[in-house]
Amino acid sequence: MVMDLYEMTMSNGYFKEGCTEDRVVFDVFYRRNPDAGGFAIFAGLQQIVEYIENLHFSEEDIEYLRGKNIFTEGFLKYLSEFKFKGDIYALPEGTIMYPDEPILTVVAPLIDAQLIETAILLEINHQSLIATKTRRIVKSAEGRAVSDFGARRAHNMDAAVYGARAAVIGGAGSTATVLAGQMFDVPISGTMAHSWVMFFDDEYTAFKKFAEAYPDNAILLVDTYDVLDSGVPNAINVAKEVLEPMGKRLKGIRLDSGDLAYLSKKARKMLDDAGLNDAIIVASNSLDEFTITSLIKQDAKIDSFGVGERLITSKSEPVFGAVYKLAAVEKDGTYIPKIKVSENIEKITNPGKKNLYRVYDEENHAFCDVIACDDEDLANVHSLTVIDPSKPWKKRELNDVTFKELQVPIFKDGKFVGEDKTVQEIADFVKKQLSEEIWEEEQRFENPHRHYLDMTEKYYDMKNALLEAVKA
Amino acid sequence: MVMDLYEMTMSNGYFKEGCTEDRVVFDVFYRRNPDAGGFAIFAGLQQIVEYIENLHFSEEDIEYLRGKNIFTEGFLKYLSEFKFKGDIYALPEGTIMYPDEPILTVVAPLIDAQLIETAILLEINHQSLIATKTRRIVKSAEGRAVSDFGARRAHNMDAAVYGARAAVIGGAGSTATVLAGQMFDVPISGTMAHSWVMFFDDEYTAFKKFAEAYPDNAILLVDTYDVLDSGVPNAINVAKEVLEPMGKRLKGIRLDSGDLAYLSKKARKMLDDAGLNDAIIVASNSLDEFTITSLIKQDAKIDSFGVGERLITSKSEPVFGAVYKLAAVEKDGTYIPKIKVSENIEKITNPGKKNLYRVYDEENHAFCDVIACDDEDLANVHSLTVIDPSKPWKKRELNDVTFKELQVPIFKDGKFVGEDKTVQEIADFVKKQLSEEIWEEEQRFENPHRHYLDMTEKYYDMKNALLEAVKA
Repeated sequence: MVMDLYEMTMSNGYFKEGCTEDRVVFDVFYRRNPDAGGFAIFAGLQQIVEYIENLHFSEEDIEYLRGKNIFTEGFLKYLSEFKFKGDIYALPEGTIMYPDEPILTVVAPLIDAQLIETAILLEINHQSLIATKTRRIVKSAEGRAVSDFGARRAHNMDAAVYGARAAVIGGAGSTATVLAGQMFDVPISGTMAHSWVMFFDDEYTAFKKFAEAYPDNAILLVDTYDVLDSGVPNAINVAKEVLEPMGKRLKGIRLDSGDLAYLSKKARKMLDDAGLNDAIIVASNSLDEFTITSLIKQDAKIDSFGVGERLITSKSEPVFGAVYKLAAVEKDGTYIPKIKVSENIEKITNPGKKNLYRVYDEENHAFCDVIACDDEDLANVHSLTVIDPSKPWKKRELNDVTFKELQVPIFKDGKFVGEDKTVQEIADFVKKQLSEEIWEEEQRFENPHRHYLDMTEKYYDMKNALLEAVKA
Repeated sequence: MVMDLYEMTMSNGYFKEGCTEDRVVFDVFYRRNPDAGGFAIFAGLQQIVEYIENLHFSEEDIEYLRGKNIFTEGFLKYLSEFKFKGDIYALPEGTIMYPDEPILTVVAPLIDAQLIETAILLEINHQSLIATKTRRIVKSAEGRAVSDFGARRAHNMDAAVYGARAAVIGGAGSTATVLAGQMFDVPISGTMAHSWVMFFDDEYTAFKKFAEAYPDNAILLVDTYDVLDSGVPNAINVAKEVLEPMGKRLKGIRLDSGDLAYLSKKARKMLDDAGLNDAIIVASNSLDEFTITSLIKQDAKIDSFGVGERLITSKSEPVFGAVYKLAAVEKDGTYIPKIKVSENIEKITNPGKKNLYRVYDEENHAFCDVIACDDEDLANVHSLTVIDPSKPWKKRELNDVTFKELQVPIFKDGKFVGEDKTVQEIADFVKKQLSEEIWEEEQRFENPHRHYLDMTEKYYDMKNALLEAVKA
């Protein structure tokens, strides 16, 4: 029942019109990379699969809908027996994606396709947003560890848990959210809260007790009273007086307030002077890719970043605007392309049933993406003329390239036919693409290279003809 | 298991220290109103109650934790039998609240208090954020209807559903999210998608079919092809040719792109000229309080706003920063106040077990809030000297005032003792406070009046003495 009411009222209308078996094509695409970045990461597919496999309407649901007095009894009966029976194609989860290309396509009976709109969109919008944001943060950390500390500022529990999943897909090494660790088999991490330090009579005692409880894993929070006058000296004393006699080393300290650049350098020196060169410094406190970049530029001595609110809400850009648009309607066995024109040029859709290819050069770099008509198979093509729709007068010749079809089958006639992947496998896939296939120029924060989304001549001509027809 | 790992590792440490029965006081408070506003709305309490009533650890949970090899068997057994057994006090849900005051207080055994930190915070942070944002949007609409259209851009399903709940608390008249309507008995609403218009052979047919299915409720989406050349004329023709013969009137049209001010004025005139003065105009497309204010200033002819992504994510400020801080520890029957000093002045906490009062003048305006010591009962006091902690040299005399204690008991010894309220009752409570108690000057968007949070002399002296002691 996580649906927009209009999906149900439209479906009720389609049912009334007897269109339940008409097959349609809906594409999911988004229009702009968050944070003016060069790409985004496709995430959330696993949860879409789970949603669709479980999709049904209970007696209570039907009773609730009946009470609205807008649905026919025939439609309510139809809903009570409803199971999704269409096909879904999508990018493999973790695929690097770009604006305006079809990232997920539903080919299904009209009502089947309409009822899953909201669930598909919110899952993609949420997880792709967080994965993409996390990747920016991880990149800024230049190899230092990044952990998701965001649950408490997440937009409710799902956002904490699936946000943690997306964060790991984007490159976070761990999450503090226990349930996410349990559900997705990803590493969990954490240090201590100020409450631990405040509960005991003094900071030294608090650190001592924690070190005794976790001699191998003690990361001591040093900013409850005064970092340099109290926190770090107490941590050093505990390392010497409590841990060393046990044959253990202090794992590290955490800074959670103040000038992290200054304090980390001072603390590093104090730790080093005490012979604790292997104690790490963890930093937290409203971090994101910009503050981390700045800290590293200032030569802050931070080994590990705990990133909370600005990761789990993608604070700088909390909306990922994927949309779900009708692309074609089957008539007598062929798919008639449909286009939405709209008052905003950027809201014009790419019509028709189509294929999306990623084009690789001889060094296996992802050169551009290409939209082709459904009946154009480019799998064995190695040179092609394509059109950049933003500069249609400039045709481009692609030579010595390989075309890889990006969407793979996920559901066939309502049955899941995709691949099950662990979150770690998806995260590895992201990493591999970014290190091997995707140009570094698309990954920089400032003015990244725009990945071309070109069209075959046939597809471009079809779209143009349709626009002309609408105008007429 | 929606917990931060550190809550569990600290609890394991407390268990090891034999502190399971030590009672502590934790306060929830936040530091800054979102969007530089003058207040926030307290929301999410009902979900905290449900979480705490259901809080337990299953065998699978224990097994998962055991696998981490950091918890003692004694602690795992303790967890497996765990039930929350403390007290909770909080503002009634929907209370207007201000920075730095205790909005929820947990008085409980140490581990009980520690394990519920994340769940309490994320529920308050999420729902208070959305309720507060929605109230701004509703205010900007100056009496016109506001509906939540945000599910597809929400941060996963909970954010859609509990966000819709919070939106209604903040003043939205309805939500498009069906499950929210079902769970919280709030009105649901919706129109049609572009897909409906595109599915049929032409726009007129699409409108005709919809009007036939919903003769009483047809709001036609007019921007699929061209608003003024096609959408509005087709809507008018359907009103005349389909609805009028049935004795029905066109409910309205929806604009979802383009210049909403211009298009709404033109469309209004076309509708009026056709005698459809009662057809409403609904507008959507990345709206928020700023765009709505601007539209109304331009005399846009819009009767109802469908607000999506910028409401459901609180896009302009997606983080509500409530925190959970130790305030006191019981020792031999008295609560010893605890303070966190931190490197950032604004992160210094208000220590001790305390009472929070709202002070009303003779006209029942909420004049200021006052923090008092736990043993100061101001219920029958009508004049008092208070201190503004930001200007402690300026004591203020309050005369002819009434003190109302703001927190009420929610849990007593682990049992729910609060009041059950419907979402509509909470929304009405918000509305009543804002129209009767809260100064208009605190409600404006630009530079709102700062609501005073004062302290009794006794409380102020206690806090100062504690700060001095830490410094020493």
